[in-house]
Amino acid sequence: MTISLYAASIPVYKQMLTSLSDILKKAEAHAEAKKIDQNAYLQARLYPDMLAMIRQVQIACDFARSAAARLSNQDIPKVEDNQQTFAELQTLIAGALAFLAAVKPEQIDGQESREIITRPGTPQERRFTCQTYLLTYALPQFFFHVTTAYALLRHNGIEIGKKDFMGAY
Amino acid sequence: MTISLYAASIPVYKQMLTSLSDILKKAEAHAEAKKIDQNAYLQARLYPDMLAMIRQVQIACDFARSAAARLSNQDIPKVEDNQQTFAELQTLIAGALAFLAAVKPEQIDGQESREIITRPGTPQERRFTCQTYLLTYALPQFFFHVTTAYALLRHNGIEIGKKDFMGAY
Repeated sequence: MTISLYAASIPVYKQMLTSLSDILKKAEAHAEAKKIDQNAYLQARLYPDMLAMIRQVQIACDFARSAAARLSNQDIPKVEDNQQTFAELQTLIAGALAFLAAVKPEQIDGQESREIITRPGTPQERRFTCQTYLLTYALPQFFFHVTTAYALLRHNGIEIGKKDFMGAY
Repeated sequence: MTISLYAASIPVYKQMLTSLSDILKKAEAHAEAKKIDQNAYLQARLYPDMLAMIRQVQIACDFARSAAARLSNQDIPKVEDNQQTFAELQTLIAGALAFLAAVKPEQIDGQESREIITRPGTPQERRFTCQTYLLTYALPQFFFHVTTAYALLRHNGIEIGKKDFMGAY
């Protein structure tokens, strides 16, 4: 037996985006209860030249959508990253989850060796197979941004723990 | 075609532990150049009730070793988490990498449906298959701690970027 490419991708993205949504709900409730400006969390950074929390969430959603699209050989959906509130981030995540939910195992499974070229025609061009793209690139990138969003909220006093990060598994 | 359980585990852990080692080398060099006490980095936290940076590295290594051991049906190696310096963390990571390197694909592949029970006999007991253990539990936990170690160093001014986090892929 082996792992299907679908099993290694879509359910993992769903698990972590759902937990990210729940973590952001806790942050929003905390801000509201304490009458703290949402931007104190949305614009938080761990260092001045790091991306703000809101961008971490946008990029995590982008990696989930683009991995699902690339693995299932669909066009990557065009989504504007113009969110400015927790509520808008929830809509963004819900959209990414809906895109993932529409992908069927048979659209992904069996594609392991198909080539994926990222940033084609640029100096950053990289060639992967679907398998190496997912395992060595798309999942690490995704986890990086989800964890950084979590770390930023944790750093700013939101009462969340690793259980929240892990979600339902 | 499908993904082998080995391909979805050992190379991913190797990639990220190698990049973690490189990041820690940069932090050590920075501390030395600026004559900053190593503990300023090793004991850094993002919030008072979070684990310190040194624990994040220890736990990341523990997840890599225990996943490799469980998937290949070996005993989990007993390793003491008594490191106190960057040099000792490098030895710890090198040990984890050596353990991973000794695992052969044929020890892992084909085990996808075998049961793994974590914390058996405790209220936290969880039952997985090798596949669900890796994808929904062991990899997310591992990425959480590697990314948190990175975030802590980044927050404390070490000049690293996502390229360092991603390592060689």
